[in-house]
Amino acid sequence: MIRNQKFIAVIGGSQPSSEEARLAEEVGRELAKQGAILVCGGLGGVMEAACKGASAEGGVTVGILPGDNRQVANPYVQIPIVTGIGYARNVAVVKSAQAVIAIGGNYGTLSEISHALQSGIPVIGLNTWALSRNSQQDNSITIAQNPAEAVNKALNLAIN
Amino acid sequence: MIRNQKFIAVIGGSQPSSEEARLAEEVGRELAKQGAILVCGGLGGVMEAACKGASAEGGVTVGILPGDNRQVANPYVQIPIVTGIGYARNVAVVKSAQAVIAIGGNYGTLSEISHALQSGIPVIGLNTWALSRNSQQDNSITIAQNPAEAVNKALNLAIN
Amino acid sequence: MIRNQKFIAVIGGSQPSSEEARLAEEVGRELAKQGAILVCGGLGGVMEAACKGASAEGGVTVGILPGDNRQVANPYVQIPIVTGIGYARNVAVVKSAQAVIAIGGNYGTLSEISHALQSGIPVIGLNTWALSRNSQQDNSITIAQNPAEAVNKALNLAIN
Amino acid sequence: MIRNQKFIAVIGGSQPSSEEARLAEEVGRELAKQGAILVCGGLGGVMEAACKGASAEGGVTVGILPGDNRQVANPYVQIPIVTGIGYARNVAVVKSAQAVIAIGGNYGTLSEISHALQSGIPVIGLNTWALSRNSQQDNSITIAQNPAEAVNKALNLAIN
Repeated sequence: MIRNQKFIAVIGGSQPSSEEARLAEEVGRELAKQGAILVCGGLGGVMEAACKGASAEGGVTVGILPGDNRQVANPYVQIPIVTGIGYARNVAVVKSAQAVIAIGGNYGTLSEISHALQSGIPVIGLNTWALSRNSQQDNSITIAQNPAEAVNKALNLAIN
Repeated sequence: MIRNQKFIAVIGGSQPSSEEARLAEEVGRELAKQGAILVCGGLGGVMEAACKGASAEGGVTVGILPGDNRQVANPYVQIPIVTGIGYARNVAVVKSAQAVIAIGGNYGTLSEISHALQSGIPVIGLNTWALSRNSQQDNSITIAQNPAEAVNKALNLAIN
Repeated sequence: MIRNQKFIAVIGGSQPSSEEARLAEEVGRELAKQGAILVCGGLGGVMEAACKGASAEGGVTVGILPGDNRQVANPYVQIPIVTGIGYARNVAVVKSAQAVIAIGGNYGTLSEISHALQSGIPVIGLNTWALSRNSQQDNSITIAQNPAEAVNKALNLAIN
Repeated sequence: MIRNQKFIAVIGGSQPSSEEARLAEEVGRELAKQGAILVCGGLGGVMEAACKGASAEGGVTVGILPGDNRQVANPYVQIPIVTGIGYARNVAVVKSAQAVIAIGGNYGTLSEISHALQSGIPVIGLNTWALSRNSQQDNSITIAQNPAEAVNKALNLAIN
């Protein structure tokens, strides 16, 4: 029956601002309240805050780790996946989700946004990257103003 | 609290004999009864039989898929991980487990056995590969005679 | 002695504009003239144009392919690397280079730019993506106005 | 024109016996003499000995590295490929070759043998693993008695 639940990734940096961490925790809470399963990169910062929020509401959390060691997963990851493939695991984080919520983030987050867009997986952004090509804005990232809106958009746009 | 449960991988071919499928289903049942979480490659054959057995006992099943499509997961996979990295996902299947139970299997299974042994993850074998080097038998695979013994050995040998 | 040569990646889309293809071929020529080895994703479009240019000047070309089949490499790839890991090979394309030249490109190229910047590998841009975060421009991509400038900047900024 | 040359992988442990190292160096020499390009995992032991032999005869050597650092390649690797994907790079080592020569080796080598056989890539063995399933010997590894025979068999069996 878990298969009927939506899998939504939350991506963002391991050293977020306190505001980004607050947003991530609230996103995690909302996802759990709405019955979605949280997928993330399994480490600290935005990933940990989101898992903490989801756990507080009894949600399920999946952490797809880059290294060889399950012990480095943040304490709110319930299902640690140990890939051993380094940052190439970013591809697996987004492909395992039906929509992605990006919060702040650095170049690792940008790589995940890119891989998601390349694969046709919707990306919802909260205070995150903006893109343009040849001086033309790229509007592929769906902007949200707050965590509840981000979660609603993610669930509405989620692919099969 | 899932983190306190053991993660055990079940590996084997996608076209098992009926005896191998029976063993896999029984291994899945036993794992679920003992509260372990089942990790597998997410596809058919031994993977599906093990997930079916675990599901029948209310267990949790994780399927780490090679391709880009969650839809190909067998119907008993509750947590599909979509890696997009092809057979390199074999590494993630075994690294995500604390012990591995190999049932029958072809060269893909042998690669998983090898990656597990290379990473110091215990491998328990049921009717599977036997190895030798320079005419000397390699006894790294712990042999089990039946599903219950395989599961008990896996849980006892499981690393942290 | 090849080890003393610089490895420079050229990244860009498989369906470039004719202007982008022209830029890529010229970049390939310049790299070969200056003794650098060209690394790319091995397929068509910008990758093929760059390899064609490098080959015309007697340069060495390496194509790091996503799939399982060497036959799909463009005809100017001399050293095809068959990864079998899909788009996760984008990480290997940039990590195998000491600097990266991005020409045009879509989301796959953006993922490569991101992975390079995350790994501290310089990125030189020709008519490619522009980035901003929280309404602040990110200037990590070094802009070049033409192929010769791009190659000179890549060789000057190349890391060890 | 490199594309018309055969790509042959040499696999084996990083801590070979002196006899295995001697065999590997001789295999590398023979491959270069016959115009083949050597592919390997890029590190020490059998990989280094094979690259040393090939270099001594003016051959081309490709090293597909597991980590993030080109500096760890052995000094005879001319084309270092930096994958960043850990042992999952074993898949790329064999897929990049048209035939594989295994010399001695531990579980990492066994995983490469397995991935090659799974992909239909011929494996030639010199003092390496022997396999059996359900008490039946598996003869998929073509045995060679010496380096020259191994190279001849690899070149004859090489796939396209």
